[in-house]
Amino acid sequence: MIFNCGKEELVNAISTVQKAVPSKTPMQILEGILIKADENLKLTANDLELAIECSINAEIKEKGDIVIDAKLFGEIIRKMPDSIIHIEVDQENNVKIECKNSRFQIKGISSEGFPDFPSIERNNQLKTSQCIVRDMIRQTIFAVSEDENRPVLTGVLVECRNGTLTFVSCDSYRLALRKHPVEDSEAQMKVIIPGKNLNEISKILNSTEDELNVYTNQNLILFDMGDTKVVSRLLEGEYFRYENVIPEEYETTIRINKKELQESIERVSLLISNEEARYPINMLLKMDILTITTNTQIGNAKVELPTEINGNDMEIRFNPRYFIEALKVIEDEEVEVLFSSDVGPCIIKSIDKESFIYMLLPLRK
Amino acid sequence: MIFNCGKEELVNAISTVQKAVPSKTPMQILEGILIKADENLKLTANDLELAIECSINAEIKEKGDIVIDAKLFGEIIRKMPDSIIHIEVDQENNVKIECKNSRFQIKGISSEGFPDFPSIERNNQLKTSQCIVRDMIRQTIFAVSEDENRPVLTGVLVECRNGTLTFVSCDSYRLALRKHPVEDSEAQMKVIIPGKNLNEISKILNSTEDELNVYTNQNLILFDMGDTKVVSRLLEGEYFRYENVIPEEYETTIRINKKELQESIERVSLLISNEEARYPINMLLKMDILTITTNTQIGNAKVELPTEINGNDMEIRFNPRYFIEALKVIEDEEVEVLFSSDVGPCIIKSIDKESFIYMLLPLRK
Repeated sequence: MIFNCGKEELVNAISTVQKAVPSKTPMQILEGILIKADENLKLTANDLELAIECSINAEIKEKGDIVIDAKLFGEIIRKMPDSIIHIEVDQENNVKIECKNSRFQIKGISSEGFPDFPSIERNNQLKTSQCIVRDMIRQTIFAVSEDENRPVLTGVLVECRNGTLTFVSCDSYRLALRKHPVEDSEAQMKVIIPGKNLNEISKILNSTEDELNVYTNQNLILFDMGDTKVVSRLLEGEYFRYENVIPEEYETTIRINKKELQESIERVSLLISNEEARYPINMLLKMDILTITTNTQIGNAKVELPTEINGNDMEIRFNPRYFIEALKVIEDEEVEVLFSSDVGPCIIKSIDKESFIYMLLPLRK
Repeated sequence: MIFNCGKEELVNAISTVQKAVPSKTPMQILEGILIKADENLKLTANDLELAIECSINAEIKEKGDIVIDAKLFGEIIRKMPDSIIHIEVDQENNVKIECKNSRFQIKGISSEGFPDFPSIERNNQLKTSQCIVRDMIRQTIFAVSEDENRPVLTGVLVECRNGTLTFVSCDSYRLALRKHPVEDSEAQMKVIIPGKNLNEISKILNSTEDELNVYTNQNLILFDMGDTKVVSRLLEGEYFRYENVIPEEYETTIRINKKELQESIERVSLLISNEEARYPINMLLKMDILTITTNTQIGNAKVELPTEINGNDMEIRFNPRYFIEALKVIEDEEVEVLFSSDVGPCIIKSIDKESFIYMLLPLRK
């Protein structure tokens, strides 16, 4: 195998596929990147949960393939001068890497034994854009469960029907839901993607409206960005009926500046030490003032936020982290907070778009 | 004690004095900041090795003093709205902190038992500027020894005589030396400052030519920046005669682009794994080419740098880290490298100013 290619393109491709290189694995070959020179140059990594393939332009002088340790290869290419990289592999899997005045020789591994890139029939298709899916992941991934006893909750439910794409995550204490319209009203999809994989995928998606095609079969999902393709394993099992748990009637509602609410909760939470991580903050809604307080062994804190309160007075307690994490992913200037009762679920909604809904349960007094 | 002061000024003062708050100490009071309201407001921290005092403007309504846990106080003030902070302490050491719509109450500690800020007679004075001392620390601190068996080498020698201020550090394998002229040719000083303390001091010094007055007595050194004063303990003992170890004659010398040399050494060092951290790189000077190579279990690497070589051909081996760390603190475009012999010390010199000299020993073949 012999080829030349630009340093920057190669660095970008390595950084992308490296997201599917496991940090520890009993199968040493998976710590490598498969490099295949054929019509163009293809880099692939695969940790058997997530597989990523990147195609880049290269001047192929002799076809072939090799597996090179991902970490070492990435370090060498990144430290090379900004110029054309020349790579040559001989029969004994010796890899020569040359760039201007610099030359490396390292050992490669035969590509035999490297897992095939999973193939998916391109039937069940969903067409959307990279920035939308990136944003939908960002607004739901933080609420996936870490409890391996209920595996489906460690993933994000991705559902498409009636022209709406929906992402849902839930860890039993709170639920995040994000909707977005899709052009094709016939598109149908219902899969659960492991949160860990989705997190890596969100780092690969860019923030442009570049086309993104998604295909699924029973076990796998393919995100096709053109030169980059990502396949993730799906989680088996049924997701619970999330529509049924969101209340429709509310006792008390407020509309409030998002930044002020977030900063106020963060402020009073300072008195909750790490040892008391589940300690609640108290919210009192009364006389058009939202008063947030906490009272711990360290001391007590109080913030008063004037706000128009619709409905009954209310006093309710929350895990502050669950509030803060939701507010962090909302970009609107104002949010709506809806309280069903002082023991029932509370909803945080973005106002500009009705597309993000977050539900959290209060803590008992 | 009652006072009002601006949030930003208070945050800056806390961040400054926090550098003298120990992360772990059996004396709980040292984890606090002493706040003293008198003519102005003074914040002090003191870990018995390093003491920092910051004075800021405040509207003092009632004089007094209190010690508040540094971490908690810093967090609370940083998270307050950007406005005037009001602080009130009662007879039972309850500390009320108020700012706009937010109020905290925490427990303070009586200032009894908090160590006094060390006093130094202002006799032995050296006048210089903050940016110069900051730069002199930066260019020497990286070469201090970590070996507690030779305590003086864990500090930086600071010497002033004949109108020249000199900083010297050495860890037995290499030596860094930085000189700078001072206006007062009568100024005399010879002290060894613990590297750890000097590192914190360099973070407090700003990068302007603001005046810096330095005073010493037998055990202590005071850096007086006006509103901020820092006192460090000195190391006892005699520093070795560093002037005598720097060779005066060289077999081979080169003048080379600093960035290219640094990047080339970093590049070939990639093949040195963490387990072989003391593995050398090889430098061959011949035919006006500097060839840097390494040959390890991982593979081999070679970089060729055309450069005018004055003197004999030479082949010599170094610990690459010792080369890289020195090149990192040099800002000149070119450096001079002087080789005394293939077993004797090598010197790296900045060219624009003759002020920085670095000596390192080669590794045996």
